[in-house]
Amino acid sequence: MKQISIIGIGLIGGSFALDLKQHIPEARVTGIDHNEAHLFEALELGIIDQIGDFDSLKIADLVVLAIPVNAALKVLPQVLNLISDQAVVIDMGSTKEAICKVVSTHPKRPQFLATHPIAGTEFSGPSAAIKGLFENKTNIICEVEKTLPALGEVVLTLFKNMGMHLRFMPANDHDKHIAYVSHLSHISSFMLGKTVIDKEQNERNIFDMAGSGFESTVRLAKSSPDMWTPIFEQNKANVIETLTEYIHNLNQFKAYMEQDDFEAVYNEMKNTNHIKQILKGIA
Amino acid sequence: MKQISIIGIGLIGGSFALDLKQHIPEARVTGIDHNEAHLFEALELGIIDQIGDFDSLKIADLVVLAIPVNAALKVLPQVLNLISDQAVVIDMGSTKEAICKVVSTHPKRPQFLATHPIAGTEFSGPSAAIKGLFENKTNIICEVEKTLPALGEVVLTLFKNMGMHLRFMPANDHDKHIAYVSHLSHISSFMLGKTVIDKEQNERNIFDMAGSGFESTVRLAKSSPDMWTPIFEQNKANVIETLTEYIHNLNQFKAYMEQDDFEAVYNEMKNTNHIKQILKGIA
Repeated sequence: MKQISIIGIGLIGGSFALDLKQHIPEARVTGIDHNEAHLFEALELGIIDQIGDFDSLKIADLVVLAIPVNAALKVLPQVLNLISDQAVVIDMGSTKEAICKVVSTHPKRPQFLATHPIAGTEFSGPSAAIKGLFENKTNIICEVEKTLPALGEVVLTLFKNMGMHLRFMPANDHDKHIAYVSHLSHISSFMLGKTVIDKEQNERNIFDMAGSGFESTVRLAKSSPDMWTPIFEQNKANVIETLTEYIHNLNQFKAYMEQDDFEAVYNEMKNTNHIKQILKGIA
Repeated sequence: MKQISIIGIGLIGGSFALDLKQHIPEARVTGIDHNEAHLFEALELGIIDQIGDFDSLKIADLVVLAIPVNAALKVLPQVLNLISDQAVVIDMGSTKEAICKVVSTHPKRPQFLATHPIAGTEFSGPSAAIKGLFENKTNIICEVEKTLPALGEVVLTLFKNMGMHLRFMPANDHDKHIAYVSHLSHISSFMLGKTVIDKEQNERNIFDMAGSGFESTVRLAKSSPDMWTPIFEQNKANVIETLTEYIHNLNQFKAYMEQDDFEAVYNEMKNTNHIKQILKGIA
């Protein structure tokens, strides 16, 4: 595996490139991105070896798609059309059902592996790339049975060498669970940020009075709308389900307070403290 | 200031004791707590010099109240009854209106200073105490004009020496703002934890799929219900107002999704990204 093309040189694509160079010293990484400034930045930071275009895909051994999930739906079939019979293509998006569906009947479907490494930060662009970002992180692999075993094996071994824990599940299960443990957190954080900004127009009050707890809960509100809007669009039904349940729980909590039922308020919190044990399992 | 009594030897009281010993080397710290195990633990950890009871308050130069805000309402008048004419008493609770009101007509009101250092973690008890916890943190001082200037000055100088930034405001303003930048975050976090736990009964899915973003947004759901229930009770009206607005914003976001108005979804997030600049002001 020598010629590697990465489409989308942002936080995820850039971090993957950095790890690749460590695990495959002979790798020559070509960066493809519609953002020219990002390409030059990635070249300067040593994240990629050269800037390329879709022509370079013809000689690629591995193509990595790390672009917003709406763009991925358009780009993946084009990529499959261009690659050689020996190449393997992976995507790294936060939704898996739509991308698997869009290539389900493509003749080169066996050369694609759908992956979702649960890694990232609230920042974006090549300057946000971090070496070792994927170490000890879970990577969810969907529909592995539809990928040519020999090609899948090469990629899965690479993931393992980068320190990722692999987990296999159907694409629809992935989208359902990830709505709860990732997508909902982003909405709760964005709306918390909005609520406070709307109210506290005199920002000095936020600056001075907000502590680390507030910072922790609104951290995800710094995330990129370009990345997240298409995720919510593709995972619409699941995300709406989580939102409905979350809003129900908030209304219930509020009702207990209005009724002065602080024993119920206490119990709501006590029963959720249990999250301590669950979080211990997260690196 | 030599004899110092700390009522409530948990995260806040314990951390304050640790800093005290550094800034007032001659200080002799007496710990008072209804939890005997905590007292012995604090003694063993070197957080306090001796275990005491309310009798010891008679010779105290400084009394620090760091107990849940419902208990503080009962204990503060008793403390004021016992102290000498030279002593000063401070509380450190997360609500300020009720505590100021409960002693508003007390003859020793001028010997009390209402404070709220915006510091802490999601952990509790003396083992959670941290040296330097208050460094670079904001401490909100309420009704400073009702405290004897000479006594207030001693305490405010101590806070400054510990590295705190002081901010002065009326108690009702404190309670209103803090509902937005602290109390609401705790409820959003608890209810997020509840929503995910309720749904994901097979916990393995949470363990494996949750990333640092989820952890960040539910971190506060580890907080102590014993501490937080009375805070929500005392700040009921303000907290309900923040909850109402937060739920409204979530419902609005959900409605945009249901209507497939993803331009509005995008704009909601884009307009909130602004939180980046605001958060830069938080240590």
